[in-house]
Amino acid sequence: MKDFPISKSSIENCFQLVKNKVHHTPVLSSRFINSLIDGELYFKCENFQKVGAFKFRGATNAIANLKAEDKKRGVATHSSGNHAQALSLAAKEAGIKAYIVMPCNSKKVKINAVRDYGAEVILCEPTLQSREDTLEKVVQKTGAHFIHPYDNYDIICGQSTAAYELIKDFPFLDCMIAPVGGGGLMAGTALSTHYFSPKTKIFAAEPEGADDAYRSFKAGKIIPSINPNTIGDGLLTSLGERNFPIIEKYVSEIFLANDTEIIEAMRLTWERMKIIIEPSSAVPLAAILKNRSVFESKKIGVIISGGNVDLENLPF
Amino acid sequence: MKDFPISKSSIENCFQLVKNKVHHTPVLSSRFINSLIDGELYFKCENFQKVGAFKFRGATNAIANLKAEDKKRGVATHSSGNHAQALSLAAKEAGIKAYIVMPCNSKKVKINAVRDYGAEVILCEPTLQSREDTLEKVVQKTGAHFIHPYDNYDIICGQSTAAYELIKDFPFLDCMIAPVGGGGLMAGTALSTHYFSPKTKIFAAEPEGADDAYRSFKAGKIIPSINPNTIGDGLLTSLGERNFPIIEKYVSEIFLANDTEIIEAMRLTWERMKIIIEPSSAVPLAAILKNRSVFESKKIGVIISGGNVDLENLPF
Repeated sequence: MKDFPISKSSIENCFQLVKNKVHHTPVLSSRFINSLIDGELYFKCENFQKVGAFKFRGATNAIANLKAEDKKRGVATHSSGNHAQALSLAAKEAGIKAYIVMPCNSKKVKINAVRDYGAEVILCEPTLQSREDTLEKVVQKTGAHFIHPYDNYDIICGQSTAAYELIKDFPFLDCMIAPVGGGGLMAGTALSTHYFSPKTKIFAAEPEGADDAYRSFKAGKIIPSINPNTIGDGLLTSLGERNFPIIEKYVSEIFLANDTEIIEAMRLTWERMKIIIEPSSAVPLAAILKNRSVFESKKIGVIISGGNVDLENLPF
Repeated sequence: MKDFPISKSSIENCFQLVKNKVHHTPVLSSRFINSLIDGELYFKCENFQKVGAFKFRGATNAIANLKAEDKKRGVATHSSGNHAQALSLAAKEAGIKAYIVMPCNSKKVKINAVRDYGAEVILCEPTLQSREDTLEKVVQKTGAHFIHPYDNYDIICGQSTAAYELIKDFPFLDCMIAPVGGGGLMAGTALSTHYFSPKTKIFAAEPEGADDAYRSFKAGKIIPSINPNTIGDGLLTSLGERNFPIIEKYVSEIFLANDTEIIEAMRLTWERMKIIIEPSSAVPLAAILKNRSVFESKKIGVIISGGNVDLENLPF
């Protein structure tokens, strides 16, 4: 197996590069939630990150690593979610152009948020084919550099800085857990934990309705999602090719949680911690509550991935 | 005018007494909200305090100041809100008994929360008369010490520690603002600010639908509320006799906000700061947004009083 191109010093260098551009997010705890598993949970609050999600770390690092000539032509991606906003704001802060391909049925508030960050929005049909074709045309026309939302080493390295900060602040964790969708956050979390807290066990949490990472992990090869369906809408994407081998190597286990359990964990977090987290961010807590025997009496780092929810469409 | 019995050193001593029992809550900011008034807002997050509200500070201090013989007989109050939970938990942590008179139409979840903290709940009719009569009987029967939710110097002194911490952490504020209901938090905030940051201007914010503090402030005497009605349900109570003179002396102005403005400010806080605050806590931000010229280019401390909301009954 070949080495991954992200080394210990890649992460240290990345952190130096992005640390003045991203928020060093707070870590919160709840005595009540701790009491439920008789352990200690340390929630790394990326819902307080710029644009409300960890995605800003990866986007910032990817842009910081562009060559000067690429910066002149700008960046492009297709996304209707947090990556769209993250790349738009990171581009704006770096003074470069961003082109975001979004499905025409995206919520107006999301399209407006991306435009507010100064990005050019190109609408397409709501199919993956149309998204990819439209992006291809945009890239050909503008010469913009495509930044994939997760299957990209600069993105993975940027996302690794969330767990890196958590470990620096709390250097005694027995376990680390993050949600897995495309695998950008999970691969980054796994690498940081492996390099900077090697005794910490690494876990992933995934919705049952989008369990391609779980099935891929068991099969030892990527098995893409077909029609995934879960309230954890940040985790619908299939695992990336660069992400899977990292997860396969360093993650001890992938735990599944169903939507009822995810909503329950989300509600518990809102009610007890008074923070707004999106459903995807509740999957690790759902997994912990469901697998109490694994986490009992442990000190557990939990990556809260984001807090972007539609307040008019809450699941409770 | 006689001096108030809370001096600078009262607050310092109180802080030493409670600091290991209460959370030193974090202070958060939002670049977006700052941009709306072209100023800098520092939100002191008492929604992260134990029981989800600043009330735990006052209750803890009141109990810590009981004489030994009073501790044996326990404490009592009537409340259907945050003070009930705060006193129950503070009593539990001090190992003393708490008797809480609650109206029989209180939400079951609230009654259960108080019972979970080990307090004895005595139900009464949902009228002020019944609350006071029932409390009187409980006190006669048990000898428990009545702790008023706000018209009590130990309570005011305890609440003052929120602004005290904020000023210690951010010693450069031009303004300080807190919501006013009975006046426990507001009087405490005013005293801490006056003593420890004397150049900081002190403001209060109140719902239009419960504007007795505003009217009392203008009239120079207490004018009680009659049938107050506002979404800011933590602020329905009338100003206390001990609270009013402190507020009258140190507060520069009381700003009003209507329910639409309060809901708007609450929503803005949820969406942009990703924290759960109750409607009462949004009144200061509503007042700031409404009176931009007062706050423009200023550094403003804002006390977020609590985060206890019914997720099934949100105003948006």
